Amino acid sequence: MLRIVLAPDSFKGSLTAADVCAALARGFARAVPELELCMRPMADGGEGTLDAVLVAAGAAARRCDVTVRGAGGAPVSASYGLLTQGNDVTAVVEVAQVVGITDPVAMAVPVGERSTHGVGELLRTLLDAGVRRFMIGLGGSSTNDGGAGLLAALGLSLRDCEAATLAPTPSALRRLARVDASALDPRLADCELRIMSDVNNPLSGPQGATAIFGPQKGVTADTVDDIDTTLRRFAELTEAAVGRYLAQQPGAGAAGGLGFALQLLGGTFASGAEVVAGLIGLDAALAEADWAITGEGRSDRQTLLAKAPFVVAQHAAAHGVPVTLVSGAIDPAALPALGAHFAGCFGLPNGPVPLAQSISEAARFLEDRAEQLGRLYLAVRAGARRPVE
Amino acid sequence: MLRIVLAPDSFKGSLTAADVCAALARGFARAVPELELCMRPMADGGEGTLDAVLVAAGAAARRCDVTVRGAGGAPVSASYGLLTQGNDVTAVVEVAQVVGITDPVAMAVPVGERSTHGVGELLRTLLDAGVRRFMIGLGGSSTNDGGAGLLAALGLSLRDCEAATLAPTPSALRRLARVDASALDPRLADCELRIMSDVNNPLSGPQGATAIFGPQKGVTADTVDDIDTTLRRFAELTEAAVGRYLAQQPGAGAAGGLGFALQLLGGTFASGAEVVAGLIGLDAALAEADWAITGEGRSDRQTLLAKAPFVVAQHAAAHGVPVTLVSGAIDPAALPALGAHFAGCFGLPNGPVPLAQSISEAARFLEDRAEQLGRLYLAVRAGARRPVE
Repeated sequence: MLRIVLAPDSFKGSLTAADVCAALARGFARAVPELELCMRPMADGGEGTLDAVLVAAGAAARRCDVTVRGAGGAPVSASYGLLTQGNDVTAVVEVAQVVGITDPVAMAVPVGERSTHGVGELLRTLLDAGVRRFMIGLGGSSTNDGGAGLLAALGLSLRDCEAATLAPTPSALRRLARVDASALDPRLADCELRIMSDVNNPLSGPQGATAIFGPQKGVTADTVDDIDTTLRRFAELTEAAVGRYLAQQPGAGAAGGLGFALQLLGGTFASGAEVVAGLIGLDAALAEADWAITGEGRSDRQTLLAKAPFVVAQHAAAHGVPVTLVSGAIDPAALPALGAHFAGCFGLPNGPVPLAQSISEAARFLEDRAEQLGRLYLAVRAGARRPVE
Repeated sequence: MLRIVLAPDSFKGSLTAADVCAALARGFARAVPELELCMRPMADGGEGTLDAVLVAAGAAARRCDVTVRGAGGAPVSASYGLLTQGNDVTAVVEVAQVVGITDPVAMAVPVGERSTHGVGELLRTLLDAGVRRFMIGLGGSSTNDGGAGLLAALGLSLRDCEAATLAPTPSALRRLARVDASALDPRLADCELRIMSDVNNPLSGPQGATAIFGPQKGVTADTVDDIDTTLRRFAELTEAAVGRYLAQQPGAGAAGGLGFALQLLGGTFASGAEVVAGLIGLDAALAEADWAITGEGRSDRQTLLAKAPFVVAQHAAAHGVPVTLVSGAIDPAALPALGAHFAGCFGLPNGPVPLAQSISEAARFLEDRAEQLGRLYLAVRAGARRPVE
């Protein structure tokens, strides 16, 4: 019996982590007659996190949907997960479900008018339902509002010099004069907020959210300074109102400043992949395994900065389980560094193919790769049963 | 200690088999601390055969050079090998060294004027030196003369109806009227001629040398019938003169009919890769090995028709040694068939790359692949030492 844990991240732009697991499973099944597969699709706290948790938790989790405002103000249907462990209920939230950068309706609205209000609505809905534990993944947002929308939805008051309530958007907050935190939802004080993010940037300044991540969200070069100044002023007033000073903390700039707002509410950062590994019971799966397979769309030096395959490698190493990396592509320059952490690193195509084909046929290539790795594994294991001098 | 036999074919258009061995060796050395490599570059009887034999035989073989006529008549320097085994001396000859399709001087001469005369000159030189055992590789010739040149150089008389001696070329042989074999070199009767070729075509007819292989040598569509008829008539007259009838035998059409001429001299066909495997001592190497690696530029269903990697796989299987295929590219459609014969089949790039890059960086890709395969091997072997339920 060969027991393999399949714990890949998604192949972004091509296959979900569950798709990757399914393709690997088909390939191994062709090569290995006595096979026990344990599928633990991984994620890094961004897109796919919810799916990964739902797959692993089985009956202990359920997917729910709620309609809230999207980043541009139009209603969106957002999924979240409720995970039951004993008496504890944990909500698993991906902010991209509400304010995702792939939402074409929101992206048609200028970034200055987008807000994270809907994320706050979602949290309020969960508070109403009695949830007090949250795992919040910050990847892939279209917003750059410093988390003002989230805080406003949870009771923060934002007013101009004439005491008129302002929309929690970069454009409106230019006129921000007064912030009042006294009506912030008191239930937040009882909450555990775990923020899943790999971003270490502060809220504002040259390494801040607007300067670094703004442009990909539509912040033009000539408005970076204006918006950055607006967010800094918003942060100063809000910090004073709440009595916490966190805008320069690493991670405050995650998700356009949502990292700042969530930290202000008591949230703490954690490696997305580490949190997911815990939620999906990766260690329990590895404890029973002979071999683990992980992977991602493209592996490079960044992979060793706590990306999902690296986290899988570390957990596997702790259990003495060899872990092999199977990625859509592997940067040759990163192979020496990657090689030290894996029992072999294997890119996907079996010959020269263009990128488009590599993406469109990724599932087939994965199947083939798994089959051949399975054949090699069995041959080596059979050979190694003979005396080794 | 991990003992690996490296027995790849060349990656045509990219790396010699020795280059492939060297790249694999560098990669394994990076991953495997206690490593014993045995390099047995393979060949299939065509280009690279001589090099493979010379590498494997070491001091027991030497490379010699002789100047003979090339296919177009201009002098060429051709290498051959002399392999000493006890009291026996075997000459290893690649006809492409004399009449290679990559010789630009010969290719500037029309195919109707090209001849294998120089190959006959080479054999005569070797007969003069006392050699009576020949291994002759037939791949990659530019000629389509039915072997008339070879036979003429060894004493066959070709005349027109006025008894004038004809050049042994397709054009001149149109006027062939009389063939006399009485002056054929009598020393040929004492010779062992082993012909290395994978071609099964007869000399003439719709599956013959001219129809099938002529076009790539420059035979135009409107001259196929004419040349085919000329070769058939040459064969009929020559067969009658020699008293052997072999033009329709499989392999007679190899190397533009050189297969016919060599069979007429008593030559017997053998799988090129099988002969090379014997000459390089592949079995002795495998008897001491834990693992074997083979490969080629591109693997497809043809690979299973006695190509070098398949021959290596069969020999390895006989010794119970797992053999892994590492090729520049592997046809996905052939993987199921190939997979049954190898302990894993692995194409080269680690991501989408264009063909040109795959060729230009083949050595680096091979190194990387070998390193990662080495890491996987060691991890599996280490894991398999634990009890396996």
